Amino acid sequence: MKQNKYDHREFFDEYKKMARSRKGLEGAGEWHILKEMLPVMEGKDMLDLGCGYGWLCIHAAENEAKSVVGVDISEKMLGRARELNNHPNVSFRQSPIEDIDFREGQFDFILSSLAFHYVEPFEEMCRKIYTMLKPEGRFVFSVEHPIFTSRGEQEWFKDDKGGILHWPVDHYQDEGKRETAFLPENVIKYHRTVATYINAIVDAGFSIKQVSEPVPSKDMLETNPEMKDELRRPMFLMISAEK
Amino acid sequence: MKQNKYDHREFFDEYKKMARSRKGLEGAGEWHILKEMLPVMEGKDMLDLGCGYGWLCIHAAENEAKSVVGVDISEKMLGRARELNNHPNVSFRQSPIEDIDFREGQFDFILSSLAFHYVEPFEEMCRKIYTMLKPEGRFVFSVEHPIFTSRGEQEWFKDDKGGILHWPVDHYQDEGKRETAFLPENVIKYHRTVATYINAIVDAGFSIKQVSEPVPSKDMLETNPEMKDELRRPMFLMISAEK
Repeated sequence: MKQNKYDHREFFDEYKKMARSRKGLEGAGEWHILKEMLPVMEGKDMLDLGCGYGWLCIHAAENEAKSVVGVDISEKMLGRARELNNHPNVSFRQSPIEDIDFREGQFDFILSSLAFHYVEPFEEMCRKIYTMLKPEGRFVFSVEHPIFTSRGEQEWFKDDKGGILHWPVDHYQDEGKRETAFLPENVIKYHRTVATYINAIVDAGFSIKQVSEPVPSKDMLETNPEMKDELRRPMFLMISAEK
Repeated sequence: MKQNKYDHREFFDEYKKMARSRKGLEGAGEWHILKEMLPVMEGKDMLDLGCGYGWLCIHAAENEAKSVVGVDISEKMLGRARELNNHPNVSFRQSPIEDIDFREGQFDFILSSLAFHYVEPFEEMCRKIYTMLKPEGRFVFSVEHPIFTSRGEQEWFKDDKGGILHWPVDHYQDEGKRETAFLPENVIKYHRTVATYINAIVDAGFSIKQVSEPVPSKDMLETNPEMKDELRRPMFLMISAEK
């Protein structure tokens, strides 16, 4: 399924209000970790799958990437990307990320932030990405964590007074579709286990370099006490792999 | 901390009654998966860390391993191992697994089943194991899954009537000691995140070959309907890595 919720006006209007939309990378809680997982950009050819507003594309271009291609299914997202993050070395292309078809060995670095949990054929994506990378090319991505996606509800388990008791996990081994509320609509996500994510990368031929389950920065924990709850379960899984 | 609960008589007496003690490997719910992760044993020098009754040692010896060393902290465990699983190619050694000190490149294969969640210095163990392996040697281990160890309680969250609602996760990012009930005593386990397990292996120099979060076999699911609950959250994490 190739879902394009971001071209629904109401959904897009709500997405616009999120901190990561208004503030760019500094508004994304996991940026301080993702930043450390990125390779040196200088002189590199980069592809960003599910680029949204293009914040990571412009970050790469401003760090001397030779060329950056941002792919997104949503015309509205790319419209905003072209307004906000225009740069001579960055081009944007409208396409479902499942359908990308670039040259063998075209890129030094392929990145995807919080998009693959909307994509069904993950194994196939890993094989395509492997082919599109040059030797020793890097693949870095983040997804919602399997602990987070196992139940469609994606909500804390609370007591009668609304206090958080714990994070509920269920149906973990039952991989596949989850219908879950996000912004003003229901969206379809795909739950996969940790093992499936890692084995798909290894089976495609990659070496795993690093895995991260990011925690909020010290700064965020100090300025926003609610952020402490983020230490109670991981929300994202990030993996860095090398061809 | 080097904990030796198995030499407490009551604890050991209870352990004796578990299916995995009475029936050996066939009584261990994860054996059908672990078996597939093992390398060819023929002609290999193998080390088993936390060997218990020695079921994996005798399995290796019967599959033509050249030499097998089983290490366990518990004299009672090793006494039983010598009774049950005596073989000219197998030797048992009493030692905390943290203290092993074998030659560089002594082994082709190092295995550890459900022991490292009792061991504090996991990173150091990975470095030692890497050194003790020959080039291209294999390291395969299983631990209680981080989803399973995050809360000390290690119990399903149930409704008033005792029905399972879900598996509760909490304190995930807070790595370290957990005091938890096992058999008739409290034991200390160490909770680590998935990222910590994988990064420790990669940082020691290994390549990750496979990750597994085992599910019960079809046979077990058919003969024991309660086993279906095991699909609701992973209990074990298994990793296979190559030097």
